[in-house]
Amino acid sequence: MNIEEMVREQAREAKASSRRLAVTPSPVKDAALRAMADALEENASAILAANAEDMEAAWKKGMPRAMLDRLRLDEKRILGMADGIRQTAMLPDPIGEGEMETIRPNGLEIRRVKVPIGVIGIIYEARPNVTADAAALCLKSGNAALLRGGSEALKSNRAISAILSFAAEAAGVPKGALQFIDSPSRDAVGVMMNCTGLLDVIIPRGGAGLIKRVVAESVVPVIETGAGICHTFVDEGADLDMALRIALNAKTSRPAVCNAMETLLVHERVAKDFLPKMAAAMRKKDVELRGDVATRAVVSDMAEATEEDWATEYDDLILSVKVVKNLDEAIAHINQYNTGHSETIVTNDLNHAHRFQREVDAAAVYVNASTRFTDGFEFGFGAEIGISTQKLHARGPMGLNELTSTKYLIFGEGQIRE
Amino acid sequence: MNIEEMVREQAREAKASSRRLAVTPSPVKDAALRAMADALEENASAILAANAEDMEAAWKKGMPRAMLDRLRLDEKRILGMADGIRQTAMLPDPIGEGEMETIRPNGLEIRRVKVPIGVIGIIYEARPNVTADAAALCLKSGNAALLRGGSEALKSNRAISAILSFAAEAAGVPKGALQFIDSPSRDAVGVMMNCTGLLDVIIPRGGAGLIKRVVAESVVPVIETGAGICHTFVDEGADLDMALRIALNAKTSRPAVCNAMETLLVHERVAKDFLPKMAAAMRKKDVELRGDVATRAVVSDMAEATEEDWATEYDDLILSVKVVKNLDEAIAHINQYNTGHSETIVTNDLNHAHRFQREVDAAAVYVNASTRFTDGFEFGFGAEIGISTQKLHARGPMGLNELTSTKYLIFGEGQIRE
Repeated sequence: MNIEEMVREQAREAKASSRRLAVTPSPVKDAALRAMADALEENASAILAANAEDMEAAWKKGMPRAMLDRLRLDEKRILGMADGIRQTAMLPDPIGEGEMETIRPNGLEIRRVKVPIGVIGIIYEARPNVTADAAALCLKSGNAALLRGGSEALKSNRAISAILSFAAEAAGVPKGALQFIDSPSRDAVGVMMNCTGLLDVIIPRGGAGLIKRVVAESVVPVIETGAGICHTFVDEGADLDMALRIALNAKTSRPAVCNAMETLLVHERVAKDFLPKMAAAMRKKDVELRGDVATRAVVSDMAEATEEDWATEYDDLILSVKVVKNLDEAIAHINQYNTGHSETIVTNDLNHAHRFQREVDAAAVYVNASTRFTDGFEFGFGAEIGISTQKLHARGPMGLNELTSTKYLIFGEGQIRE
Repeated sequence: MNIEEMVREQAREAKASSRRLAVTPSPVKDAALRAMADALEENASAILAANAEDMEAAWKKGMPRAMLDRLRLDEKRILGMADGIRQTAMLPDPIGEGEMETIRPNGLEIRRVKVPIGVIGIIYEARPNVTADAAALCLKSGNAALLRGGSEALKSNRAISAILSFAAEAAGVPKGALQFIDSPSRDAVGVMMNCTGLLDVIIPRGGAGLIKRVVAESVVPVIETGAGICHTFVDEGADLDMALRIALNAKTSRPAVCNAMETLLVHERVAKDFLPKMAAAMRKKDVELRGDVATRAVVSDMAEATEEDWATEYDDLILSVKVVKNLDEAIAHINQYNTGHSETIVTNDLNHAHRFQREVDAAAVYVNASTRFTDGFEFGFGAEIGISTQKLHARGPMGLNELTSTKYLIFGEGQIRE
């Protein structure tokens, strides 16, 4: 069987399974999740052996250290995956929840309830933990999953998905609900993107290149996730100690993630007070600074920030800094360069806080807090499949609710339309 | 300026305007809508003159009569457009409505509120009333609109959109919120579909060919609307008089619309009673019948329904008929051939009703009512931009709420993430 036939056949099996999974009761799904978690732990040695083979091949190929670290599994990470699945089992099941109910003048009773989306395709890179996360979230929300992980993690993913599928089906989940594409071929992605009628959505999880390709080429609807050029704006009259704590946290607590700050905007009235302290503190944390002319007039020993800097997600210990005249200029800069992820203002001015939240166009707009909180767990959703930076279907952290669609259920007594 | 530059420039203007429109207060939007309605009525003669030119050119080109009728405007239709806009003004404004609110253990206050999507592209065919409908719904929901109507209606649309834009801006709507692509070039559609970063969504309104092209080619996210292969299933034990009323209504009250029935499924236990009455009544209404072998064994004088019939949206006075063994076969047939629009069961069996609603995969699933009710007005939304047949973002009739996105607003007191 060639790769196209294989992927389409798996998508068809997922779709057939999704019909049954959509009406599988919560207790069956939750028992299956617990069984999946147990099975991961019980089979940890098999997973570690497969992962060791992936790691060796990746190391020989010269995979960069940061990527090797993401690929690597150990006992603790497997326990973490199992714990994540158990936590998903404990979350409320969104399926069947009523969203609205009305009785029309003609007597028709109309209800809208949450239903699964159907079949969710997930395309990701060499992080084997995504296999377990995605499988658990899709199952809990009643969706079949078609998973395509990075080829460097193929053996790890094969082991994990086989263990999860076996445990799920033994616990009563319809056969075929979890499909893993067991092929290193890059063509698999292209086939998935054309599986209209079989896949209901594709969620790419990974770097900007992957996401851009999927958004541009997929005929199946896509939910775009993860691009984050996030800003912190230090307003005039801000508590500058608070501003410094927030800026440091937003930049340095985990610089490679999407909710980290890339650009710091500073009101010109506080630039002289704030910038020197900020620069010293950032440099203590090994942050490279790049500033506009006004910033460099205050702190001279830094490179010039170019147009390209404002539009770059560094995902690294680099920070671009710009002095702005006022709130309007801060909002305009953000709306020009941001990716619609997370933005924060540090201010004591209620009107400025209000305007910033209303006028900045992003999934999450903060007042006096770090952008690093944009996350399904921090928002209280208990889980997260990704952070949507688009405006359709879901925006911001996507939990179980965001993996649902709706259905109108209408009861009549013979009504016809005039 | 070539067509690409023109469309992109209009999209940029729409985007710039959308930032201001998003924070324009409800009373301003509503006053603008009323002014737009008044302006349509006051300028009716100019619109009719433009429409007469479109009609003459279309007639000379041999446009089919049904399409000519959709293109044609008269005094009454213009009053209807104006009334529609006034009704939209009276609907509640969804923007700013709170969807959830939580205080996290760390003290962060998180709210999710409805915000406009941004810029909505609408691609439609030669129905000038869509220009007014779409403009009103987008404005009310705080969205800028980029409209591209069928070239045969160019002069009508030009007149309508100029009148609407002028009235809206005079009433305080930000300049550029309503953009009409004043060109007959088909290339405009291709440019729109690649306006990522400027357009937030494209909603195609029209025939299957247009929708299929936009879904396949657009890089901008699309909401798929309007394809409807709808079924009526007459269960054993159904009230056959009610079944006949519902089937007749679903097929004949307006056969060309998407919520009309295309296939009738009949339980084998009632086939002998029901089919002859049904056939006689349908034929009285000039419906051509096509049946499977079992149907033709009861009512012999009809053509054979082929595999192609089950998969065809006739949009015409044609009905395919199939006898099924039981509820399972009915559900399986529907889930194989439907387009996820509207399905109905006529039954007295509560368990069958429940299973049909749970297991049939469609936007609207009815018990004992005609599928013809799937409509934003009939559902009580007061307006409708189309009927989504996809599962992401919106499913079923799309009113003002479905033209919104969300934003998380977070208040802190200096919180940082550990």
